[in-house]
Amino acid sequence: MPIYQAPVRDMRYLLHDFLEVGRYSNVPGFADVTPDLTDAIFEEAAKFSQEVCFPLNQSGDEEGCHWEKGKVTPPKGFKEAYDAFKAGGWNGLTCETEHGGQGLPNIVGLPFMEMMISSNISFATYPGLSRGAYEAIKRNASKELKDRYLPKMATGEWSGTMNLTEPHCGTDLGLIRTKAEPQPDGSYKITGTKIFISAGEHDMAENIVHLVLARVTGAPEGIRGISLFIVPKFMLKPDGSPGERNGVTCGSIEKKMGLKGSATCVMNYDSATGYLVGDLHKGMRAMFVMMNEARIGVGMQGVGLSELAYQNAANYAKERIQGRSLTGTKYPDKAADPIIVHPDVRKMLLTMRAFNEGARALAMWTALHADLADRHPDESVRRDAEDLLALMTPIIKAYLTDMGYESINWGVQCYGGHGYIKEHGMEQIIRDARITQLYEGTSGIQALDLVGRKLPQHMGRLLRQFFHPVDQFIHEHVDDAKLGPLVMQLAKSFARLQQATAWLAEQGLKDPMQAGSGASDYLKLFGLVAVGYMWLRMAKVSLAKLAEGDGDKAFHQNKLHLARFFMEKMLPDTSSLLSKIMAGAEPLMAMDDAAF
Amino acid sequence: MPIYQAPVRDMRYLLHDFLEVGRYSNVPGFADVTPDLTDAIFEEAAKFSQEVCFPLNQSGDEEGCHWEKGKVTPPKGFKEAYDAFKAGGWNGLTCETEHGGQGLPNIVGLPFMEMMISSNISFATYPGLSRGAYEAIKRNASKELKDRYLPKMATGEWSGTMNLTEPHCGTDLGLIRTKAEPQPDGSYKITGTKIFISAGEHDMAENIVHLVLARVTGAPEGIRGISLFIVPKFMLKPDGSPGERNGVTCGSIEKKMGLKGSATCVMNYDSATGYLVGDLHKGMRAMFVMMNEARIGVGMQGVGLSELAYQNAANYAKERIQGRSLTGTKYPDKAADPIIVHPDVRKMLLTMRAFNEGARALAMWTALHADLADRHPDESVRRDAEDLLALMTPIIKAYLTDMGYESINWGVQCYGGHGYIKEHGMEQIIRDARITQLYEGTSGIQALDLVGRKLPQHMGRLLRQFFHPVDQFIHEHVDDAKLGPLVMQLAKSFARLQQATAWLAEQGLKDPMQAGSGASDYLKLFGLVAVGYMWLRMAKVSLAKLAEGDGDKAFHQNKLHLARFFMEKMLPDTSSLLSKIMAGAEPLMAMDDAAF
Repeated sequence: MPIYQAPVRDMRYLLHDFLEVGRYSNVPGFADVTPDLTDAIFEEAAKFSQEVCFPLNQSGDEEGCHWEKGKVTPPKGFKEAYDAFKAGGWNGLTCETEHGGQGLPNIVGLPFMEMMISSNISFATYPGLSRGAYEAIKRNASKELKDRYLPKMATGEWSGTMNLTEPHCGTDLGLIRTKAEPQPDGSYKITGTKIFISAGEHDMAENIVHLVLARVTGAPEGIRGISLFIVPKFMLKPDGSPGERNGVTCGSIEKKMGLKGSATCVMNYDSATGYLVGDLHKGMRAMFVMMNEARIGVGMQGVGLSELAYQNAANYAKERIQGRSLTGTKYPDKAADPIIVHPDVRKMLLTMRAFNEGARALAMWTALHADLADRHPDESVRRDAEDLLALMTPIIKAYLTDMGYESINWGVQCYGGHGYIKEHGMEQIIRDARITQLYEGTSGIQALDLVGRKLPQHMGRLLRQFFHPVDQFIHEHVDDAKLGPLVMQLAKSFARLQQATAWLAEQGLKDPMQAGSGASDYLKLFGLVAVGYMWLRMAKVSLAKLAEGDGDKAFHQNKLHLARFFMEKMLPDTSSLLSKIMAGAEPLMAMDDAAF
Repeated sequence: MPIYQAPVRDMRYLLHDFLEVGRYSNVPGFADVTPDLTDAIFEEAAKFSQEVCFPLNQSGDEEGCHWEKGKVTPPKGFKEAYDAFKAGGWNGLTCETEHGGQGLPNIVGLPFMEMMISSNISFATYPGLSRGAYEAIKRNASKELKDRYLPKMATGEWSGTMNLTEPHCGTDLGLIRTKAEPQPDGSYKITGTKIFISAGEHDMAENIVHLVLARVTGAPEGIRGISLFIVPKFMLKPDGSPGERNGVTCGSIEKKMGLKGSATCVMNYDSATGYLVGDLHKGMRAMFVMMNEARIGVGMQGVGLSELAYQNAANYAKERIQGRSLTGTKYPDKAADPIIVHPDVRKMLLTMRAFNEGARALAMWTALHADLADRHPDESVRRDAEDLLALMTPIIKAYLTDMGYESINWGVQCYGGHGYIKEHGMEQIIRDARITQLYEGTSGIQALDLVGRKLPQHMGRLLRQFFHPVDQFIHEHVDDAKLGPLVMQLAKSFARLQQATAWLAEQGLKDPMQAGSGASDYLKLFGLVAVGYMWLRMAKVSLAKLAEGDGDKAFHQNKLHLARFFMEKMLPDTSSLLSKIMAGAEPLMAMDDAAF
């Protein structure tokens, strides 16, 4: 039977020792974020995820969702779990107090999200999508629309969705065909077909608030003619409660590799009534808020699933006996040594764990900047935070899902042939995780976003928010007796990142194919340096804790072991990535299209 | 709908232009291997795999195998396909003529095996296991046993299996508990439980010949007390035909991630009658023949599945339109450009293809040496060939499956979200392929075999069979105007391999943990250099063909593009692998077992 224990110890460390959120008590909403409060929340969240969500993870995969005549039923137990989720007030954790939420910042919401993902990613998609829809409406819609929809969405009574893709267009949303015809009353009639709509239809909420991209009659072609609409599943009665059915139905659900408890719907809009959100033809901009938040969330899926895989693999490696240590028997009281004694098994586990904890730190650090961008009273702090958030979003999305997937595969590898058998629950994690590199923009699309948009934006201004602090940290600590050796290693990789950045900027100006050809290797190189920087900072924190005699010595000692492992066994990939980037476009473009 | 076209053009090239099998006409069985003969065989094999096996690939996955009261039924159509397989004489392709086979060498059998794998890996496991059992019996059993079993196995009327693993022991076969009690008539009574037995039970063959590892009463403990037995499903009547049922039953079949058309059985032996194969207590040695052949076969699974993934992904990338080329519209007659114009999509496809063709060459080159080791009249040639085969076997098994899996994931990535949907058939390839890194010894076990056994064997003698020809090739061609730049790149990586080898040898002598810690990175480094060497040699062949005005100019030009791509975009990984190896054991061993 698979196991899961929410990593609340690490989350506490990141919030209070690593990010030192106490330093931001001047930021609205942060004063409440004390260790006492977050301990209480995380303990409850751990209980909810471990006891309510996790027991439904394997059964939900086994059973999947059901579609019948447009009705979608999630797996057994999901509705009850969703009721408990609402009753616990979990949906409102980071919603505004004016809508009935608790108004807590992202840095409190993100650890909870991770627990939901680890314990049951399929279940987590339902509130996850609602959360994104809530944000998009909150930031873009009129007061009237907000008042009608957001309080119900904050409680979770109503859920939300995000309708972008159509069968023929995938990432290229300029090709969207769904039409919106203006009506005399100011509403629109929406007609078209959307695919890959997570949580598009189900019976767990009283209403579903669809956010739909469509083209108003006579709009310009391409991406500049797209607007965003709210299309409720049930029309609202004058008292605001759900009334008659709107013209939107679920045509079918997809048969997928994994994520089977989450309904992936084909949604048919047939003159459905919709309400414009934000400005006409500015739908993409409004949707981007939702997409950016969703991208951080998907990055977190890479981490959450990798955490689940790690815990099980580590547990298995400590229990499964087979062979003896290369240097002789280590557990003489057993018929064989547990496989944890083998260096290759340890390498797999350490790779997973160094990724998990480093990536979690990176996501939390980025989430802090999302909060500062939102809430900080000082405009220049907000702008800097926004810059860092924009820069890191594609890295979080792509690097954390690519590495998360790789990590999960190491976890399965620790099990040998047993990893392939369903009952252990490991193969499910691969299947559930594979989507994370694909949806919300593939990893390749993220790399193009990083290299083609984020790097050149404002003459390279975004980069400064990462390069300056790293540079400064290296200079300040390179001579430190204990931290110095780790700093030296990061410095070497950071120099490679700087070199690659300069190369891409220079070559990319002459020929965009050069930038495009190196984009995905560059994103990976960036991700490695970013996680390496997190490990340096964690090592610094833990060294200080050890020096001051912190009671949890083993915890901090492990952080140091993991930091070293990351630097010596993972970070060296930056050298080959730099070579590949600088090999340029020619090896990719030489062959004729038809020869593939 | 997924597509598959057997790559007969490439197979012909490898056999006749690359390996120049014509040069070996003095080796028994090779004189027949003319282009005419292999063209005829490969065309028929392509037809069989494309028309009989491939149409059952998705339906077999969907339906899976059925178990009821010990009876196992493969998916619909498998029995008919197996009948066609027998009728076509495919099973006997490489079996001895004295048993009714065609006596052709491995280098003819391997391309056929690849086609079977690509078109339907689940189906391919049934004859695949029989093939290994045939070899193990042929090489180890008494004449009497051979005469009774092999002719029926050569036709495919009877199938075979390989029973090693037990629930508690996995790779550590020294822990085997299955017992064999000697009987007065010279037979044995076998009792115990074996798990993960592919094709252990089914209704497609008239009899199933189980090869079973067991411990004879009073045998020494551990690996030196294990013997090998034939245990037929049905006892043979005096006329040699199947009679009454033996004491072996299938207790259940596993629910797995993929490979669902292949029955993975729990086999219960309850005083089943068995016959000793080879010498008492020498079962492991006899089984190794079967395991080595199986390991090459599993490596080929990595290539075959990656080939299937490539063909579909390339096809999709040429058809799916979305966005425009970074340098402006390339297909003005279409609403958007096909995604093949994007450098990142090309990078994924080229990575797959450079792997497929390079790995296929490596497998064929190794298979040639397996044939020479078996058949060459000159003992020193046989010994050298055997050395190379022993050296390359763990590399073929681990590197080709690890890279094959990675490659297949690139194929899925080309599809975006559609890759996650069952109907396209791509996610199935991931699921089917994941087992290849686990069974027949995990990749980590292969790495230990390479570093712990193959490198030190005979004072490093095995290595010479690879290092000398590579060294010689580099020296002979480094100044070549056209080949030189590619040679330089391989030379750099080859130097890294030599450096890593020396480091492991030196450090490993002092502390086996050092060797163990670098083993899997070393195997990958070796695999990269080995495939790089294949690309150099293919580049040389294709340059010569172009120079002599070969009619198939595009084919050879593509080989040169791919060789360059491999050198510049894949081979650079050797630099980071070397760093990781030389970081040594300390970062892996520092953390306490309990801290994981």
